[in-house]
Amino acid sequence: MSTRTGPSLTGGTPLRGLDEEEVLGRILPLFAPSADLIVPPGDDAAVLATESRTIVTTDTVVLGRDWLDAWSSGADVGTKVVAQNLADVAAMGGRPTGVLVTLVADPMTSIDWVVDLAAGIAAACQQAGVAVLGGDLSSAPAGVVMVSVTALGNLAGAGSAPVLRSGARAGDRLAVRGSLGLAAAGLHLLMHDQADRHPEAVNVQRRPDPPLEAGPEAAAAGASAMLDVSDGLVRDGGRIARASGVVLELDRDALREFVAQISDAVGEETAWDCVLAGGEEHSLLATFPGEAPAGWHVIGAVRSPAEGEQPGVLLDGVRPQHSGWDHFRNGEGRRP
Amino acid sequence: MSTRTGPSLTGGTPLRGLDEEEVLGRILPLFAPSADLIVPPGDDAAVLATESRTIVTTDTVVLGRDWLDAWSSGADVGTKVVAQNLADVAAMGGRPTGVLVTLVADPMTSIDWVVDLAAGIAAACQQAGVAVLGGDLSSAPAGVVMVSVTALGNLAGAGSAPVLRSGARAGDRLAVRGSLGLAAAGLHLLMHDQADRHPEAVNVQRRPDPPLEAGPEAAAAGASAMLDVSDGLVRDGGRIARASGVVLELDRDALREFVAQISDAVGEETAWDCVLAGGEEHSLLATFPGEAPAGWHVIGAVRSPAEGEQPGVLLDGVRPQHSGWDHFRNGEGRRP
Repeated sequence: MSTRTGPSLTGGTPLRGLDEEEVLGRILPLFAPSADLIVPPGDDAAVLATESRTIVTTDTVVLGRDWLDAWSSGADVGTKVVAQNLADVAAMGGRPTGVLVTLVADPMTSIDWVVDLAAGIAAACQQAGVAVLGGDLSSAPAGVVMVSVTALGNLAGAGSAPVLRSGARAGDRLAVRGSLGLAAAGLHLLMHDQADRHPEAVNVQRRPDPPLEAGPEAAAAGASAMLDVSDGLVRDGGRIARASGVVLELDRDALREFVAQISDAVGEETAWDCVLAGGEEHSLLATFPGEAPAGWHVIGAVRSPAEGEQPGVLLDGVRPQHSGWDHFRNGEGRRP
Repeated sequence: MSTRTGPSLTGGTPLRGLDEEEVLGRILPLFAPSADLIVPPGDDAAVLATESRTIVTTDTVVLGRDWLDAWSSGADVGTKVVAQNLADVAAMGGRPTGVLVTLVADPMTSIDWVVDLAAGIAAACQQAGVAVLGGDLSSAPAGVVMVSVTALGNLAGAGSAPVLRSGARAGDRLAVRGSLGLAAAGLHLLMHDQADRHPEAVNVQRRPDPPLEAGPEAAAAGASAMLDVSDGLVRDGGRIARASGVVLELDRDALREFVAQISDAVGEETAWDCVLAGGEEHSLLATFPGEAPAGWHVIGAVRSPAEGEQPGVLLDGVRPQHSGWDHFRNGEGRRP
């Protein structure tokens, strides 16, 4: 179970054996129609029904950096890149409505892998009620495959404001919706060829399933700040802290339940690393002036910085030494 | 003048010497604000003011396939990738409002080149009144640089319908707004180290300047079908012909004026190739049931296929042997 299922990236008919219209002919029928889609892909552009304010975001995955072919199928990659984009829309308090997908691939990439990728994208979109609005296919140097997604969404209601990172205030509760550390634990297990020790964690690493509905729910419940955990709790929490000018005090006891879910599989110390610094989880992290809504786990509190203190994240009164991921400084290696 | 101006792709401080926030700190201040931008980039997502229908499209350029560092500066690349996306919005009859930009680059790419790229993007967006809504930075294997843009736009008025490729009808006039063949002639001259023979053509190759305002104007004037010429007149015309089930009869005399603009520089035969098959021009090609609006050049007519005749493009009654560009079949070479 540690290796991927589904067609391999190479082998079979390569893309270079087909023209663009043949490739699109294999892919486009996979995408379900949507009530929001006024003009489907195939013209110069698509046309999407929108409200007065549209949320837009984009995120890209690159073979060898964001996924390894040995561990993730095309469908895994497609599911994940859609999920991480939709999570950003949800983290603004919005409902995702559409995605555009660009594939830049070595012409030797297998058409079967590309169809599997498209199937993963299609399934993730259908589950979220999101339309595929178009895309682009381009050839790349040998060995290069990357998938870039742009997601659009509506704010939940005409009167609702987007939930930014900058709205956390002293006295708010810090809460998370969804898991923490599972994706990183799954990666750890894949790297150590121990995937069968925690299949759920491996599955979250391959195919995160963000709690998308919780984004608009949190906005309606008065969330003061929100984001999705893509680079790790401490690093992403630090973004809320700096944008809001506050200190987030994590509650070690509240985090123990997340640690407990993975410590048997990866060990106690690694489990804490995963919970505090593990990226790619795409759970929602938010602050609430009042009670957190049902389904959210309170994991800390917001306070004003003391005199001379910088905004940031503290655990037991000190800054955790888990800084998370940076693309260029960390070079070509894999996360975390 | 045949070589680019501006910082080279490598040399100076590489991206890997900076963290993502330092890179963004150099880039984001270049982007002008826009009345359409409700939440600027920097949170999980941006928020854009939209109307009830939003046009969306995406297009990507890859180093070595879509541009060569020897010929195009970062600013050239940024200008061009924005222009080709905005042209797709205009070709639906829309007004572009925003773009998202993804850069996937070898960590050894120079920060100065990236800033030059961003300056080109910023200038092209500012000229068009378009907001930069966000983006993504990712690292790529050595030697790989690609820039992906997604563009959004509004239809000109709440009551106006998008102009598709499928609306051309027998009796319509076929007309073009903007140049034909200049971008391909410019590429030909760069390839033969003769850029000084037609600096304007070389400039169009490096920095196409599509007639964006003409898209909504054509829609208002009743254009029945429209697209932008990205893969060549014959190939793109064929898309209108097939989508509409019609034959487009090109008028050789009307095309002579486009040929005449480049034949001194590239020779008569190559000039015809450039006009008929040259891509990357991003002029608008449309069909009109009545008179074409001012500024459009009528270059042909639309008729129904004869019995047993396939939809397509004819010149002097025969199908031109210029098929245009296909990414995967043509392999890794450069256009055309």
